[in-house]
Amino acid sequence: MGKGSDPKIEYLFKPRSIAVIGASHDENKIGYQILRNIRAGGYSGKVYPINPRGGEILGLPVYSSLAELDEEIDVACIVIPAKLVFDAVKDCAQHGVKFILIITSGFSEVGNIEDEKKIASYAREHGMRVLGPNIFGIYSAATSLDATFGSGKIMPGSVAIITQSGALGAAMIGKTAVENIGLSTMVSVGNKSDIDESDLLEYLMDDQGTKIILLYIEGVKKGERLVKTLKEATKRKPIIMIKAGRSKRGAMAAASHTGSLAGADEIFDDIMRQCGVLRAESLQEAFDWCKFLANTPPPSGENTVIITNGGGIGVMATDACEKYGVKLYDDIHTLREIFSWVTPGFGSTKNPIDLTGQATSGDYDSALDEALKSDGIKAVIALYCETALFDAENLPTMIERNYLKYKSEGKPLVFSVFGGDATENCITSLRKHNVPIFADIYAAVSCFGAMYSYYRNSGARPERIRDVDVDIDIDAIDHIVSQAIAEGRYFLLAPEAQNVMRAAGIAIPESYLARNLDEALRRAVEIGYPVVMKIVSRDILHKSDVGGVALDLENREEVIDAYQAIIRNSKARQPDAHIEGVEVSKMVESGMETIIGARRDRAFGPIVMFGLGGIYVEVMKDVSFRAFPLTRVEAMRMLKETRSYPLLLGTRGEERKDIDSVVKTIIKLGAVIQRCKDISDIEINPLVVYDHGKGVEAVDVRILISESKRGKTDE
Amino acid sequence: MGKGSDPKIEYLFKPRSIAVIGASHDENKIGYQILRNIRAGGYSGKVYPINPRGGEILGLPVYSSLAELDEEIDVACIVIPAKLVFDAVKDCAQHGVKFILIITSGFSEVGNIEDEKKIASYAREHGMRVLGPNIFGIYSAATSLDATFGSGKIMPGSVAIITQSGALGAAMIGKTAVENIGLSTMVSVGNKSDIDESDLLEYLMDDQGTKIILLYIEGVKKGERLVKTLKEATKRKPIIMIKAGRSKRGAMAAASHTGSLAGADEIFDDIMRQCGVLRAESLQEAFDWCKFLANTPPPSGENTVIITNGGGIGVMATDACEKYGVKLYDDIHTLREIFSWVTPGFGSTKNPIDLTGQATSGDYDSALDEALKSDGIKAVIALYCETALFDAENLPTMIERNYLKYKSEGKPLVFSVFGGDATENCITSLRKHNVPIFADIYAAVSCFGAMYSYYRNSGARPERIRDVDVDIDIDAIDHIVSQAIAEGRYFLLAPEAQNVMRAAGIAIPESYLARNLDEALRRAVEIGYPVVMKIVSRDILHKSDVGGVALDLENREEVIDAYQAIIRNSKARQPDAHIEGVEVSKMVESGMETIIGARRDRAFGPIVMFGLGGIYVEVMKDVSFRAFPLTRVEAMRMLKETRSYPLLLGTRGEERKDIDSVVKTIIKLGAVIQRCKDISDIEINPLVVYDHGKGVEAVDVRILISESKRGKTDE
Repeated sequence: MGKGSDPKIEYLFKPRSIAVIGASHDENKIGYQILRNIRAGGYSGKVYPINPRGGEILGLPVYSSLAELDEEIDVACIVIPAKLVFDAVKDCAQHGVKFILIITSGFSEVGNIEDEKKIASYAREHGMRVLGPNIFGIYSAATSLDATFGSGKIMPGSVAIITQSGALGAAMIGKTAVENIGLSTMVSVGNKSDIDESDLLEYLMDDQGTKIILLYIEGVKKGERLVKTLKEATKRKPIIMIKAGRSKRGAMAAASHTGSLAGADEIFDDIMRQCGVLRAESLQEAFDWCKFLANTPPPSGENTVIITNGGGIGVMATDACEKYGVKLYDDIHTLREIFSWVTPGFGSTKNPIDLTGQATSGDYDSALDEALKSDGIKAVIALYCETALFDAENLPTMIERNYLKYKSEGKPLVFSVFGGDATENCITSLRKHNVPIFADIYAAVSCFGAMYSYYRNSGARPERIRDVDVDIDIDAIDHIVSQAIAEGRYFLLAPEAQNVMRAAGIAIPESYLARNLDEALRRAVEIGYPVVMKIVSRDILHKSDVGGVALDLENREEVIDAYQAIIRNSKARQPDAHIEGVEVSKMVESGMETIIGARRDRAFGPIVMFGLGGIYVEVMKDVSFRAFPLTRVEAMRMLKETRSYPLLLGTRGEERKDIDSVVKTIIKLGAVIQRCKDISDIEINPLVVYDHGKGVEAVDVRILISESKRGKTDE
Repeated sequence: MGKGSDPKIEYLFKPRSIAVIGASHDENKIGYQILRNIRAGGYSGKVYPINPRGGEILGLPVYSSLAELDEEIDVACIVIPAKLVFDAVKDCAQHGVKFILIITSGFSEVGNIEDEKKIASYAREHGMRVLGPNIFGIYSAATSLDATFGSGKIMPGSVAIITQSGALGAAMIGKTAVENIGLSTMVSVGNKSDIDESDLLEYLMDDQGTKIILLYIEGVKKGERLVKTLKEATKRKPIIMIKAGRSKRGAMAAASHTGSLAGADEIFDDIMRQCGVLRAESLQEAFDWCKFLANTPPPSGENTVIITNGGGIGVMATDACEKYGVKLYDDIHTLREIFSWVTPGFGSTKNPIDLTGQATSGDYDSALDEALKSDGIKAVIALYCETALFDAENLPTMIERNYLKYKSEGKPLVFSVFGGDATENCITSLRKHNVPIFADIYAAVSCFGAMYSYYRNSGARPERIRDVDVDIDIDAIDHIVSQAIAEGRYFLLAPEAQNVMRAAGIAIPESYLARNLDEALRRAVEIGYPVVMKIVSRDILHKSDVGGVALDLENREEVIDAYQAIIRNSKARQPDAHIEGVEVSKMVESGMETIIGARRDRAFGPIVMFGLGGIYVEVMKDVSFRAFPLTRVEAMRMLKETRSYPLLLGTRGEERKDIDSVVKTIIKLGAVIQRCKDISDIEINPLVVYDHGKGVEAVDVRILISESKRGKTDE
């Protein structure tokens, strides 16, 4: 008992002993059902029902309290009313329990945040970890432990499920049985008062018994850690995720509304892609992927071939390949050599390979054999559409035979078949044998899409940000920011923001603060005409709104007029504003306008954003996001993911833009938001990008102070 | 026999007599199978097998030739080798046959275009119509006629299928049986040498026995007629279409690659939407929609409510509603009044209505009853996720009971249920009773999406283009174009194109042709500085490429310099070019740049295109298309369909643009391309759009002559 380091997470998955606090004699109670499942599942450790009433349940002696036990308890499963839970947790601490599973609901999910926090922190203080509350239990194949209150039997296997929703988790058990998906683990994380997805992933990523991990998530709490853990885990095994709330309205319904420029789900989606997570749209798709990836060898390369007996379905599969990012083999010459002998003259040896409606099961065998033998062909999509000429009675055996052959040779294969009862029965029976066969072509190809996403991600070389890229003068930045905080401001003045850019090594146009007209005129000459002038005031954030900006000033007269107008306008619109002076800067040469942002997200911590300037961001929502740690390749992908990326590459005879400098700026801005905790938001808008080799310039920079640091003093 | 008007299409669907030319004694031959299916289907008309060998097949006396028959023959079904078909067609003409079904393949699909054309035109000349060749037959429930060679029994019902692929058609028969979808008709159109989709749609749109039409299309031949027919047909019943080749690669595979700016499929997709056609992505989706729409009453309005026992699946359904355009009921106050008594406190009466995991079948009954009674709620999506508390044995009866209640009251309802064996069995058994129930939430909501698309389209008021909108001086335009043709040109000179705009009533900047410098200077003063100058030469299409354009000329000196430079550049780059002079025009005020195009599409005839200018079209591919007839509402929708539409509405404090003038310009340009057959392409780029009420200006206009008219003479 007592304080100490955290117990090893293995004891949660492989407990040697388990106590059920609240074990019940009543078959309709969860306290009975859990015990029943533990017994029925054939758990190999020791089980102790606890109930003050004593007696015997399912042949096991019931203990009146934990104190009665001499045994060490790895896991205590609590199924008593919410108001009694804290006392039980204290008993657990007394007894030296390692993990507490709080099945009981009635905590933060109904607003009772306080009790939940109290329990979780008490447990941690006493060297215990808590799963839940508000969960439906845990299943672990390693010790044949089914400590859930579900009614179905769980089949052991290689898929681990982590679910935030207990209700959906229970239904998933049924669904996995229907789909013949065996589980290594199923954990309901519920309210995540202590143990969350990251804790479980850290164990499961190295668990030999787990090949695939399925995550059902409703909301992210400790996003920074989750990103780090997911990035590591996806290097080792595929992680499939379902998160509802993709749409604006859905996100509102999920009450997870954050983010301003883009809906929070876009940020989530981009970050999950960055982590290499396979995000499924629907539950059905997630289960299809799980089953497929658990039963299919990884591909050794990209080139996929479609083999079909119908032209139309071949074209549909081609469409689906484009939708799901599956790359088709294109070497027409080789394809002709391989397939011409099994393809009639009016068929096609171009990809899709069209064996025509005359194909028999033998022709499929031959074509699939050829594809299997070919080193150039890395994966096969086989389509069948019911015909009168086909020897339909051979369909199931032909499919299963080839499935097994491909599996043993380590080449991915998927089937999609379309037709009547015989075809449908073929699907039903073969799916029970885990053969990847689908009625819907898109469902089949979607599995290939998931497989290749994973393949590409896991094959990517590990990469570290070079120190030189993040060589920023953080002391200088902290000094600037702390001055603003000391003055009680919530944003930096333009000259300050420019100094932050200088300290970060991000180029800005030559610029000076002029405190009077004479100084402005001198600076203008120094910089060289044309110049730009802007009001500098701690009280004015939106400079152009007050008439505080003048562009393209070509001579002394224009500077004089503009200076007076800026001061006059600003004083007229905001009479109380304290005016520092006017910023005089070089008129920026025209280039491509982009926006780069960095901010502290509620869920994911520091994130960066990239988009093409102006209306692209505001109307087209053509932006991309990334969390940390961030690599150069990932920053580069941010650019590539925008629809407007071709503009950076140069279109209509224009030069390629300085993409490398954009990537560097993203990384540097990321380093600033990561390392300077007092900054909440930075936006460079526009960052003007010049032709290749000619760099970028941060023309306008806005930096906001973290809310917790704002208004510390008030002048 | 002999020439005459076309036979009535009814005789194809309801023939009184049918001859099978090539009837066979061999059970493995199509000539036997068709006869077997006609007999087995219980066809009510007369059947005459024709085979020179005579004898008896399936109890029917075989005639050695058509000539032997005294009877009138409505339909002759030809199943003899390709080289014998023409002679058989001649026999049919001799005998006065009305419709010929050519099952035989080996015609245009293998390059034998000539024989196919010969047969089709011979038949038309002799008052006969041809279905095929290369088809798998026809099924018509009205006369219990199954003249296909499929192996499965066809169930009569209310869905008509028209398929271009015979192979897929045969498989579809099997699929409809599996899905319990009854058919009114199934027609394979094959190579469409004569009868095509439009002929069949004209009949089926008024056929009382047909409620839904499913079209499988691989390529469009007579697109103008198809558009017209589809527009009429979709006003009367839902038309669901599958066309493969959505992706670039898929379109290449389908060898239907047309269009320059956008892939041909984008044009096809936009035009089908214009026609009110419901385009399905996959075969499974198409069949889901067929079955759903055949069994569901039409909604009387938009407000959909989601009822669920799980929060997560409720959010997923909300996401799906946004994806498929299903509008959710939003009156929180009314929803609370209706549902609060069936929803526990920790549930939600906001849409989705969350009955929570504690809901029983009785709670679903109550909630569904309330939704059915409410006039404000127009349709319901009911979700269920397996829970321990639910009385699962009541699930199927609860669902079927509510399905029937909703059906009889005329309110749409769809179910999606998720769980184990019991849930899965519930789906299987209820689908056999045509209850709309799905495992996948997205599949369920997709059906609602199709239903509402149809509802919105059929509810739209009929609208005609006002004459005033298409009041163009076509004689003037024809005159300009014929002059260019006479000169052997393939494009119009700028002043000519401007005259076309004037004749069409489309505003252009004030502009004159100056044949020398003096004239240019005089015109510049007349127009008022600043002006723009451009080279005018029949030999120069791309003016800026030869240095033939000068913008923003502010005074006399600049006009002199520019004039000389333009002439010098043009002569240097294209020494042989015949130079007409220089166009002097008003410098256009800045506004929003858009592109409007009109051209003659190979498949659809005249089409119009709209997009925002410059990079939006070229990089973002943000364009929309429409075919004719075109209404104002449809032209308006072209604007709304672009992602950049908010820019026309005015963003970032900008004024709303003159949207009405853009719509008018699209309609006028459409009228030009429709009525002046010698023009193949018109592109206004840019059409500058000013603020609301301030109109538009066609700044640059390119008009190309139809290929067939080009180079008629050569100066």
